[in-house]
Amino acid sequence: MSLDAVLSRIDETLPQSLERLMELLRIPSISTDPAFAPDCARAAEWLVEDLKSLGFAARAAATPGHPMVVGHGGAGDRHILFYGHYDVQPVDPLELWDRNPFDPALEDTAKGRVIRARGASDDKGQLMTFLEACRAWKHVHGNLPGRLTIFLEGEEESGSPSLVPFLEANRAELSCDLALICDTGLFESATPAITTMLRGLAKAEFTLHAASRDLHSGMYGGLARNPLHVLTKILSGLHDDQGRVQVPGFYDDVTELPDALRAQWQNLAFDHAGYLGDVGLSVPAGEADRTPLEMIWSRPTAEVNGLWGGYTGAGFKTVLPAEAHAKVSFRLVSDQDPAKVLTAFRAWAEAQLPADCRIEWHDGIEGAGASVMAITDPAFEAARAALTEEWNRPAAFVGAGGSIPVAGYFKTILGMDAMLIGFGRDDDQIHSPNEKYNLESFHKGIRSWARILARIA
Amino acid sequence: MSLDAVLSRIDETLPQSLERLMELLRIPSISTDPAFAPDCARAAEWLVEDLKSLGFAARAAATPGHPMVVGHGGAGDRHILFYGHYDVQPVDPLELWDRNPFDPALEDTAKGRVIRARGASDDKGQLMTFLEACRAWKHVHGNLPGRLTIFLEGEEESGSPSLVPFLEANRAELSCDLALICDTGLFESATPAITTMLRGLAKAEFTLHAASRDLHSGMYGGLARNPLHVLTKILSGLHDDQGRVQVPGFYDDVTELPDALRAQWQNLAFDHAGYLGDVGLSVPAGEADRTPLEMIWSRPTAEVNGLWGGYTGAGFKTVLPAEAHAKVSFRLVSDQDPAKVLTAFRAWAEAQLPADCRIEWHDGIEGAGASVMAITDPAFEAARAALTEEWNRPAAFVGAGGSIPVAGYFKTILGMDAMLIGFGRDDDQIHSPNEKYNLESFHKGIRSWARILARIA
Repeated sequence: MSLDAVLSRIDETLPQSLERLMELLRIPSISTDPAFAPDCARAAEWLVEDLKSLGFAARAAATPGHPMVVGHGGAGDRHILFYGHYDVQPVDPLELWDRNPFDPALEDTAKGRVIRARGASDDKGQLMTFLEACRAWKHVHGNLPGRLTIFLEGEEESGSPSLVPFLEANRAELSCDLALICDTGLFESATPAITTMLRGLAKAEFTLHAASRDLHSGMYGGLARNPLHVLTKILSGLHDDQGRVQVPGFYDDVTELPDALRAQWQNLAFDHAGYLGDVGLSVPAGEADRTPLEMIWSRPTAEVNGLWGGYTGAGFKTVLPAEAHAKVSFRLVSDQDPAKVLTAFRAWAEAQLPADCRIEWHDGIEGAGASVMAITDPAFEAARAALTEEWNRPAAFVGAGGSIPVAGYFKTILGMDAMLIGFGRDDDQIHSPNEKYNLESFHKGIRSWARILARIA
Repeated sequence: MSLDAVLSRIDETLPQSLERLMELLRIPSISTDPAFAPDCARAAEWLVEDLKSLGFAARAAATPGHPMVVGHGGAGDRHILFYGHYDVQPVDPLELWDRNPFDPALEDTAKGRVIRARGASDDKGQLMTFLEACRAWKHVHGNLPGRLTIFLEGEEESGSPSLVPFLEANRAELSCDLALICDTGLFESATPAITTMLRGLAKAEFTLHAASRDLHSGMYGGLARNPLHVLTKILSGLHDDQGRVQVPGFYDDVTELPDALRAQWQNLAFDHAGYLGDVGLSVPAGEADRTPLEMIWSRPTAEVNGLWGGYTGAGFKTVLPAEAHAKVSFRLVSDQDPAKVLTAFRAWAEAQLPADCRIEWHDGIEGAGASVMAITDPAFEAARAALTEEWNRPAAFVGAGGSIPVAGYFKTILGMDAMLIGFGRDDDQIHSPNEKYNLESFHKGIRSWARILARIA
């Protein structure tokens, strides 16, 4: 069976695959620091050459920032785009690293053999799993596993300033049938997972005004309106005692989790006690009738992210301030519309204002809706079966509490769904000193892509 | 009638009284700026000499800061202490003054003739009203109007660091039957008033802790406890919808206003619309069943003076912070005990904490109770009658929403009540450029003291 041949080839050539990854890891492509711009360009060129060696027509496309690597190759009915990023986080504080972050090495640890270097997991090690799968496939079959477009960004760790303009300017070239994004991890470091739901986000910031100037509480306390009291009254009503958001209509466009997905999530047996315990908490604090995974993946939220007013320095000042401030954000799911949610929030807050108070809104009505992938596309179940086979554990469609912007842009700009599949582990220390990627993640990651491509490409 | 002779003498010698005040105003006794320490000493000496000229045994008593002027003189059954302060506020911003702040002059304004200078109202003009009354009395009668101790501070505008130690060290010498404090004003610039109730103050500052570190709302939002929500829940419950403080037992030691006082306050016809209108407000926001004057003079309050947590900078950060902070103060009346109030507040707040949260209290259990003068002492009614006679308007016993620390110290350290009587107007611009004191305040202030001393000394 030809897939077996590809998998054997992957196993046999793992040392060479690893050596190529090490080469890429030696290039300090820190995108946020202009001093490393030549290194970013060098990493892009290295990837272009590697893609060409695989038979891709590849180029490093210039942007106002770092180049985008784009390659096209192979043939097939379904056109698949693969996304990764070749830039890495800064390495400060350097003194907390046990070795030079750009001198990668294999290390044996209590949790197995790891590749230690900045970018080993985020995202060079991950993106190379896909290219190595293509390489083994090409060796066995003489051609790529399907019609592929490779799209590798160099600004993911610095806010992706060129991403949206580039997607918009190259819409025709980059619009495919499906995207594969390799920048996520295993579920709880162990279970293969495909992220198919990403929550959206809407943000509001406002100032609540009362008196025309700060007042002395001796002269005015008890008589004048204190905007800090008004603010706490309004914001304390954001949730009822069951944790449900009280903005009218907030749940109107929220759909319930399909039964099949609910069953998968129950099988995941999420260790919420451990997840919360890691940050000093023990009790889920969200909607009373929801499971912890629902709370972070499939339920919308309203959260106060910042709050301030009055005297906040050392000591005391018995002031009744003229104003109070808040930043509030909403994680959105299903079909919730950011504009609709923010408009409802504004109306709800303003309806509670007592006499002499007014709210000044500081930002526009904007945000991004949730990304919910069309898992009815058989490719999703196919990929899930492939992952289950490789990892010998039932793979799951999972959610992500935060947004992964590129997935949203693929959907809104290029009109394609994405499967987010990655092999990172929770302890990879991405963005931190001593980043690592388990050799198993790399090896089984390559094998996973071979299995997935065999089924869907 | 001998009082008439004193009043005539006051009228006849007003130019000389004014010239003495001008002399004192020319000394730039700014207490907060060490560069003016010699001027403070000079002002103290000037006053000592003036007191001696009136027959007082007077001295400038050294302190670690500026000297205290102490004088004793006269004879009588009731020993009365008079308090004022000879130091003044800084004059910055100097460019906003229409003349040299220490070159006093009489000016004709739309609101009458005024004495323009730093300290004209706060407090040199006021303290001199008392000394001039003594001077006229002495001229007519050959002796002082009673057994008097004069106590003039030089650090009132810089936090009175030496006051408590000095009172404690000179308790025997300074303890009298009654204190007169001349550092307040007419009620609404028009009606003579004796302040007989000063609210106390208790302060609490705390940090509410939840997770052990700041969390990302994408990863934890909806699941993890947000301390900003807990803080708003707790603080929003500080008052019910009628404005009553909800801390258990808060009103236990609050007594109702005596009917006589209530009637006086009703007669004052407080222009709360104007008072609130000056600061951009229109509606009294305190306890629903209380008059505006009660709200600021005779009712206790709970006010959030500061509140902060999460991300408060420019832009947005979708953080669930590890902690939230608040500063809360209570204005106290009647027999409310600061320690009892703070203990109840702590218990009340902690009883509302959900799982995984704790409160760290940042200050001790301290504060000062209200000062409520024993207006049953006939001296109070006598002084009120004297003021009513002089100003031809019914004088009132009024409250003060804030504390005037020296009145509290006289009560707690020296065990004597105080009558706070002053003749300043709301538009005197004390602490601001172009401070002034109406000539009428000065003239009728002197006459007021003569009338009061005739009745009580």
